[in-house]
Amino acid sequence: MGKEESGITVSKNSDFSEWYTQVVLKAKLADYAPVKGLIVLRPDGYSIWESLRSTFDKKFAKNGIRNGFLPILIPESLLGKEEKHFAGFNPEVFWVTHSGDNKIGEKLALRPTSETLAYTMYSKWIQSWRDLPLKMNFWNTALRAEIKATKPFLRTSEFLWQEGHTVHATQEEAEKEVMIILEIYKKTVEDELAIPIVTGKKSEKEKFVGAEYTTTMESIMPDGKALQMGTSHFLGQNFSKPFEVKFADKDNVEHFAWQTSWGVSWRLIGAMIMTHGDDKGLVLPPKVAPMQVVIVPIYKNDEGKDKVLPKVDEIRKNLESKEIRVHVDDRNELSPGYKFNDWELKGVPLRIEIGPKDIEKQSMVIAKRHNREKSSLSFSEIGKIGEILDEIQVEMLKKAKDQAKDNTTSISDYSEFKSKIEDGGFFCAPWCGKLECEEKIKEETGADIRVIPFGCENINKKCMYCQEQSISIPIFARGY
Amino acid sequence: MGKEESGITVSKNSDFSEWYTQVVLKAKLADYAPVKGLIVLRPDGYSIWESLRSTFDKKFAKNGIRNGFLPILIPESLLGKEEKHFAGFNPEVFWVTHSGDNKIGEKLALRPTSETLAYTMYSKWIQSWRDLPLKMNFWNTALRAEIKATKPFLRTSEFLWQEGHTVHATQEEAEKEVMIILEIYKKTVEDELAIPIVTGKKSEKEKFVGAEYTTTMESIMPDGKALQMGTSHFLGQNFSKPFEVKFADKDNVEHFAWQTSWGVSWRLIGAMIMTHGDDKGLVLPPKVAPMQVVIVPIYKNDEGKDKVLPKVDEIRKNLESKEIRVHVDDRNELSPGYKFNDWELKGVPLRIEIGPKDIEKQSMVIAKRHNREKSSLSFSEIGKIGEILDEIQVEMLKKAKDQAKDNTTSISDYSEFKSKIEDGGFFCAPWCGKLECEEKIKEETGADIRVIPFGCENINKKCMYCQEQSISIPIFARGY
Repeated sequence: MGKEESGITVSKNSDFSEWYTQVVLKAKLADYAPVKGLIVLRPDGYSIWESLRSTFDKKFAKNGIRNGFLPILIPESLLGKEEKHFAGFNPEVFWVTHSGDNKIGEKLALRPTSETLAYTMYSKWIQSWRDLPLKMNFWNTALRAEIKATKPFLRTSEFLWQEGHTVHATQEEAEKEVMIILEIYKKTVEDELAIPIVTGKKSEKEKFVGAEYTTTMESIMPDGKALQMGTSHFLGQNFSKPFEVKFADKDNVEHFAWQTSWGVSWRLIGAMIMTHGDDKGLVLPPKVAPMQVVIVPIYKNDEGKDKVLPKVDEIRKNLESKEIRVHVDDRNELSPGYKFNDWELKGVPLRIEIGPKDIEKQSMVIAKRHNREKSSLSFSEIGKIGEILDEIQVEMLKKAKDQAKDNTTSISDYSEFKSKIEDGGFFCAPWCGKLECEEKIKEETGADIRVIPFGCENINKKCMYCQEQSISIPIFARGY
Repeated sequence: MGKEESGITVSKNSDFSEWYTQVVLKAKLADYAPVKGLIVLRPDGYSIWESLRSTFDKKFAKNGIRNGFLPILIPESLLGKEEKHFAGFNPEVFWVTHSGDNKIGEKLALRPTSETLAYTMYSKWIQSWRDLPLKMNFWNTALRAEIKATKPFLRTSEFLWQEGHTVHATQEEAEKEVMIILEIYKKTVEDELAIPIVTGKKSEKEKFVGAEYTTTMESIMPDGKALQMGTSHFLGQNFSKPFEVKFADKDNVEHFAWQTSWGVSWRLIGAMIMTHGDDKGLVLPPKVAPMQVVIVPIYKNDEGKDKVLPKVDEIRKNLESKEIRVHVDDRNELSPGYKFNDWELKGVPLRIEIGPKDIEKQSMVIAKRHNREKSSLSFSEIGKIGEILDEIQVEMLKKAKDQAKDNTTSISDYSEFKSKIEDGGFFCAPWCGKLECEEKIKEETGADIRVIPFGCENINKKCMYCQEQSISIPIFARGY
């Protein structure tokens, strides 16, 4: 592959979609699998998922949630037990009909989500109040046949995710859990991936099939489209009744339990790429970067090599001792310029350059990936690298917040909305609460109600569409 | 569930198979899923898998292996690209034929193993010697339709495993990798699960379909049957040729690469249960136990409660500060005896009992799960708990080694073998190397060649079956 081909050949502004695909493939995060709709994760891509998993696992554990394993195959009859749920998922379910040359009795679904399977098990496991709350999480994949063009991390027929399923004795406790999870999601995405989040509720039309209500976190992408980043559902007793998830209370009376389910997927990685990447390629937030610092030793024809390399090694060891993920690019035959481009493409947050002149000055050049600023740092200040990485993390979130703010508009005039939606963005607009208006707006503009932000309920204005009294100010946007 | 039902109702010696199933279900490690052949892991079962995964991940990383993700669906044509491989797996493959109501073009296999998919990707990713070695690992599940009765962790149609796939420039390097992995496997299983291992090669008949040769680790279970604990395959160029995994060497000449693949599954958990469990239930090695120490505060009618509980809390905090996984069983209404049985069933390595009399004596009772020994430890010796857990780990391995030794017999007389194999065990017996003898022995006794231990090749004796010159002394046994 020539040098030109290996870099990104379109700008983020001119062709966002092509830019995104090139970044994913050329930064070697992922690649297309042989089956349409499926992707493979390469080590740098999977490593980001591992980092997120590890962070979530710690937070889930603190909240009393434990991991388990569910098989991928669900019998058709089980998937069909909650009717609305089944109707919602059926068109995109992959069905197993044969094993070897033999037709199997009842066809089996590849899990589109595991409510029906998990709750079949829960109904066996839960007998009394002592067994509650039951809070489990599953790191697996879900499969939903995608007919549109594959978009790595955003639109694939199999995706990595976690799905949590909790059971509670009271409605109040279950509803509290829904919010605790949503808050863990929001904080993790903002702290780790430096992506700002709006949380709130989905409309009735957009809620999870089978839920009482769905809370969601939404983000605005640089192309003006909204991305659903994760959802936390209050299921009420909609599943506990058909699946008989019951418990005997202290007074020995049987009750149906109250349930929640919630999930985030590798779509978060897609959001990270879109939010932070630039024309040179990927830009990784330090907290999730597989490699946080790359050191490029600089010398020509081995001149100064004997001075540079020992210093490089010393700095590497120093950073490693502080658990900073560092790599030395000591590849021969490749120019520093080539290496700089390579690591910029891959989004490494900080580059350190050390050549013979730096050794003389007892300092090194540091280059930040996210704003491409270069500066000098004396060897004695090596202890500051950790802080610098933290600063980068903060700056990236701040920049993304500013962008999101610029992309968010309050609006009440429908014709103005219709014109502005063409350029994308989040639009906060009053809505009467009627499905009819929601559907008309979708039909005429392609925009959905993405989220009714918390605090934007019960606001008495006039519906942007029908001019009747509004019940809330949702965010409308076109979505992924 | 009554007290009697909740304990194990058969002895390990009298009905090993029923004993095993009861331990798995009643210790709440796993449960049967609605589809025949599939199981669900509950938190205590999955936690053991997480512990193993974490240990392997660290060792793999040190050896330059990185994790990735492969989708579960493999097109039929791809699975069929290496003929022997396909013929070997085809009868047990689950096939997806529909998505929603639509028949899909080419039917898709649920991965029985990922060689064909991984190497399709590798052939795209590898161009030159710079891209080698390529060493990746995948934590996923494999699916192989089981027609026999489900045995949790041992015989299921979907199982958790890791599959590693490496590519090398030279045969020598690939063969070395095969052995490095086998050694990581052996050491991890012995150190973490306290199960002794025999390593060596599989016979031609028993090797992985598509491999040049297969190295294996085998263990003998207490019922005298052998269990294959993991395999590491040298694939030679058997896959690199059909899948065109090629690289340009420094001299710019193209070569086919040399490959390895290797895997262990949750079967290791099954082996752990069988090896260490007893008539009271599960016995967990401290290193993988989700809970290493349980503290049971003892008082009647709240008498002494005010003295006992603060001390219990102090000890819990002390152990937690040393990263010992500790739990306090402060459930009301349950007797100490009930709690002891409960935690013994669940295999917690160490129980601490503290009552008002212990407070007076400034000491606690400690009860080891693996040998059921009780002793007294003064409060001032709390710092020794970590050592005691280490000792338990060592004692468990020693005991298992002694058992394995007792179950291993050198034998050269075939009629003696035929009689002794009925009681199970490992039998080291000379073999001529001919498939015919191997097949006859299997036919007449049900015993396979499990492994040709390293160091047992080229031994010149007389084949147990045909009396011709032997080429090795394999271990024969009936297997799971």
